[in-house]
Amino acid sequence: MPYPDELRLEVERYLEELRFTDDAPLSGLEEAMRYSLLAGGKRIRPVLTLATARAIGRDAAHVLPLAAAIELIHTYSLIHDDLPAMDDDDLRRGRPTNHRVYGESVAILAGDGLYAEAFRLVLTRQDGDPAGLLRAVAELATATGVNGMVGGQYLDVTGRTDGLRRLHELKTGKLIAASVVCVLHLAGAGQTATLGFRRFADELGVLFQIVDDILDVTGSDADLGKPHGSDERHGRRTYVSEYGLKRARELAAASHTQAREHLAAVSGTGSATELEQITDFIYTRTS
Amino acid sequence: MPYPDELRLEVERYLEELRFTDDAPLSGLEEAMRYSLLAGGKRIRPVLTLATARAIGRDAAHVLPLAAAIELIHTYSLIHDDLPAMDDDDLRRGRPTNHRVYGESVAILAGDGLYAEAFRLVLTRQDGDPAGLLRAVAELATATGVNGMVGGQYLDVTGRTDGLRRLHELKTGKLIAASVVCVLHLAGAGQTATLGFRRFADELGVLFQIVDDILDVTGSDADLGKPHGSDERHGRRTYVSEYGLKRARELAAASHTQAREHLAAVSGTGSATELEQITDFIYTRTS
Repeated sequence: MPYPDELRLEVERYLEELRFTDDAPLSGLEEAMRYSLLAGGKRIRPVLTLATARAIGRDAAHVLPLAAAIELIHTYSLIHDDLPAMDDDDLRRGRPTNHRVYGESVAILAGDGLYAEAFRLVLTRQDGDPAGLLRAVAELATATGVNGMVGGQYLDVTGRTDGLRRLHELKTGKLIAASVVCVLHLAGAGQTATLGFRRFADELGVLFQIVDDILDVTGSDADLGKPHGSDERHGRRTYVSEYGLKRARELAAASHTQAREHLAAVSGTGSATELEQITDFIYTRTS
Repeated sequence: MPYPDELRLEVERYLEELRFTDDAPLSGLEEAMRYSLLAGGKRIRPVLTLATARAIGRDAAHVLPLAAAIELIHTYSLIHDDLPAMDDDDLRRGRPTNHRVYGESVAILAGDGLYAEAFRLVLTRQDGDPAGLLRAVAELATATGVNGMVGGQYLDVTGRTDGLRRLHELKTGKLIAASVVCVLHLAGAGQTATLGFRRFADELGVLFQIVDDILDVTGSDADLGKPHGSDERHGRRTYVSEYGLKRARELAAASHTQAREHLAAVSGTGSATELEQITDFIYTRTS
């Protein structure tokens, strides 16, 4: 399945060039942050950001600071999720997790630092009309706060939730949606255009999670970069544990169709090719 | 010593009314956040924010969202600093620390959540010209990132530092300075006015830390809300361990004089009475 690798490489180059401090005594903290940030992967969130810029007829490179900030935030969430007090995971993308390499205290601070530097990056380097930029940053804060990523992780570790969909909507869906919607805010798009893209992005978050749950059961350890079956070992409720593998696959197919329909409904002034490719990739990926 | 208690009460009321979610399953996370946020104290940082607004002839109440956001950030830093992987403290302001009450995973998330909600608060509730607001939020992100609070905590836990002053400048000084300087940004103040206030605020951060180190040696457990002498037990370099108690007291006196002089140099269109009171309070406080 084709993936917009050209956009991924733009993100990768930008992330590799990012430095967080000139202060020698702080270089160990920067190293820990870059260790997790530069662990590779498909960079789905920032690539979504760049692809959304293209879809509304803007230059993808223009939103690189915003896109990179979102990847910093995603990385922060992975570092904190892996901590001994949380999921206590030893491997991530085939490499020892941050706290296994740098220790728990530095890992906590590497996460905290990535989150702060994400805001700093977008606030100091992202060009755009101030009002639109403010809305984009507010969307990021909301997507990652109590009613977003942090809240979702809370539901996950405590087992307190009304439903599976709600947990994942918060834990992973909101940031995926923000990766798309922030670009609309930044561009000063109207409510109708923004809402259309939000529908698409929300569905993409659902699709991402269903496939993630399926892969945890069916994927190989080598593809996943971590032992599969970790959801079951953590006693986690997943689409597979709730509905069984067959029904989960049907749900994924339905969600993919829905996401593509939402996307077709919003295609506007630019090219949605890359957004279509990402949508298909999220559905068919094997890791 | 008089303290601007009227401003402190405004902050306290605002903080008490803050809610972070309407979502019932997330109420436990909100409770953990509010447990630490509403633990009382002098609220020096947000009171500084309100007092700075007065000093430049603005309405103190106008900057309440910004002031409260800074207290949320301060609270987040305390929760993470107290964690078992960090200082492993059991008491804070006379009460069990967050992780002692809610467990380590929820405490990490309560800190993460407070930090996110701080940004959300100022980005969605603080009135002001968008360009000034952007500068204020960028100052907050910088003051709390790798070259600020998180970097300072890294130097503290790893013992990697060039000097004591640098460690504290990052760990506590930058946020104290931001409490003042953000108000200038928000008001669209010019570089000269902002620089004058920054000099004052930087010195206030230094004064705060010297007095903190002295109190850790001389204060009573009841006043401090935690066992005194914790710096020595943690093997921490302090103004007292470096210079001895007598010299540390001289340094505090000199820093207080310097801060008052910087403040006298910037007094502008409003009343600096409250800023003077806070400066004197920070010097003479017993807890």
